[in-house]
Amino acid sequence: MEKTLRIVVDAMGGDNFPQAPVEGAVQAVKASEGFEVILAGKEEILTEELKKYGYTGERIRIRDCREVIEMAEPPVHAIQTKKDSSIVAGLSMLRKGEADAFVSAGSTGAVIAGAQVIVGRIKGIRRSPLATLIPTEKGVSLLIDCGANVDARPEQLIQFAQMGSIYMENVLHIKEPSVGIVNIGAEDEKGNALVKETIPLLRERKDIRFVGSVEARDIPAGGTDVIVTEAFTGNVILKMYEGTASMFKRMLSTTLKSSVRGMIGGALVKPLIKKALSAYDASEHGGAPLLGLKGLVVKTHGNSKAAEIRNSILQCRTFYEENVNGKIEQAISGGEA
Amino acid sequence: MEKTLRIVVDAMGGDNFPQAPVEGAVQAVKASEGFEVILAGKEEILTEELKKYGYTGERIRIRDCREVIEMAEPPVHAIQTKKDSSIVAGLSMLRKGEADAFVSAGSTGAVIAGAQVIVGRIKGIRRSPLATLIPTEKGVSLLIDCGANVDARPEQLIQFAQMGSIYMENVLHIKEPSVGIVNIGAEDEKGNALVKETIPLLRERKDIRFVGSVEARDIPAGGTDVIVTEAFTGNVILKMYEGTASMFKRMLSTTLKSSVRGMIGGALVKPLIKKALSAYDASEHGGAPLLGLKGLVVKTHGNSKAAEIRNSILQCRTFYEENVNGKIEQAISGGEA
Repeated sequence: MEKTLRIVVDAMGGDNFPQAPVEGAVQAVKASEGFEVILAGKEEILTEELKKYGYTGERIRIRDCREVIEMAEPPVHAIQTKKDSSIVAGLSMLRKGEADAFVSAGSTGAVIAGAQVIVGRIKGIRRSPLATLIPTEKGVSLLIDCGANVDARPEQLIQFAQMGSIYMENVLHIKEPSVGIVNIGAEDEKGNALVKETIPLLRERKDIRFVGSVEARDIPAGGTDVIVTEAFTGNVILKMYEGTASMFKRMLSTTLKSSVRGMIGGALVKPLIKKALSAYDASEHGGAPLLGLKGLVVKTHGNSKAAEIRNSILQCRTFYEENVNGKIEQAISGGEA
Repeated sequence: MEKTLRIVVDAMGGDNFPQAPVEGAVQAVKASEGFEVILAGKEEILTEELKKYGYTGERIRIRDCREVIEMAEPPVHAIQTKKDSSIVAGLSMLRKGEADAFVSAGSTGAVIAGAQVIVGRIKGIRRSPLATLIPTEKGVSLLIDCGANVDARPEQLIQFAQMGSIYMENVLHIKEPSVGIVNIGAEDEKGNALVKETIPLLRERKDIRFVGSVEARDIPAGGTDVIVTEAFTGNVILKMYEGTASMFKRMLSTTLKSSVRGMIGGALVKPLIKKALSAYDASEHGGAPLLGLKGLVVKTHGNSKAAEIRNSILQCRTFYEENVNGKIEQAISGGEA
């Protein structure tokens, strides 16, 4: 019999705990087989919350831990001092082999710092990048690294391209995913020192379908499966996307309330716009994995609702079914041979 | 009597030449006194175009040049080989003291490369950054550097902050403009090596009202007058802003055409949305100056219409009336004393 996958969910993280992580776990076990969920957090709170969904099966259990890392705490200090927090306890279970994956909507800084320090990287992996699926007009692109390690080196970006390709091919089932590098022009001679040094290395690789530079202007339109970048730029891209989208929504909302004409027209078009915007809802794809770790760590949005937690749990299952970590290990050791 | 300001306009650049630059020049001289315009380009084309606007005064003249730098040409090569192009001829007039300012909607790369090589920098200025006014919910922010020199050093970013402050104070008349640095978190210890090294230097300066880190998510909402960043990141910010805005407009347009309901509602709300969007029209502020040069070089959008060229010409006048270059020179030499 195959080993049952064990997924720890940080039940004390994000804006909507304990409801979102607990309800998300219940939805996930009802939706699919082959894994169990360990809710990490204060036992009495989680027991109480679990009762609300009438789940009495054995696929969800609780790992009691008494501390909580707040969103605004300095991450490294929090990881070092709050050993009995849901984040440190959950990541430690991965390190000890007591669990296979960890999903958290908690402090991004603490999850990233903790994952690197506690879980550890696959042999040969130099950095563990945060890979976020961003919705585009043509579907979805994987932006990697979007915030884990700043000041990366070319050889690290090559590994991001390899890992991103494996992820998109196996988890999103995109055959021979295209890979682009974020640049400030279309030609190979454009860019900063890092990009100019990385492009020829990417062109050499036979395991990467490199399609050249991607300008930020073209990212929302989509078309490239994996978009490789250094984490500072990646984070700026992600946040500009979110910030501009929010600004537009506010502008639209204010405009449609500003006059009788706006309100009448708004009543007609709002449901249509809402539907169109739902195509840009990142939560249906689950969270952002930190790739290259011994184990899987998935960071979901701080404001995740139950659906995003559920989808992140199911994403972990696909990740293991498709043996993504095994494939990453093979690609990296093959690349170094 | 005061010297008359001489502004060269690249009349062979951008998507809409010769109409936009010629009409923009005519509009500018009709709108205001105290300067003359030199249209650089093929004389016969420009003479013909000028006739359309019935301008017969002496404040617009033509500098005949026979070559045209195309938008897609490799910039450095174009600058080196096309000596008789409107860009090289115009910039050379600045160097020789035959003109004071140059406005172009042509190839950004050629204008930036040419400006650095041909015009030269004010003594003490290490880099000449491209400074773009970006519209925000609260007004406008100056993003500096948004594309001229990648891989800047901390001392260069300090100069960007100084020059940006002087520009906003004198050209946009914002008293004691606030200055932020693009970062991936709010705290001083966040960021890449460049940002972490620059922040304490910015905090030390008495001539800069430094307000700390600005996250990309908050840029569209506005509130910081001068946003300092290295050119790679700055270009990515600018292009993500444009790309996301375009995506939203397409989404909206498609949605309002997708059904009868959408079309009826759309007929009501479209004029309102169009009006709200016009607040985000960058062209009313003119173009993006390259600061720190001996002379003023202003890059306008490639798709500039006459109004943007007109506003860019008027922007040059304010720049000189307020003696921005003199103030930059003073600030830089003061900072080095």
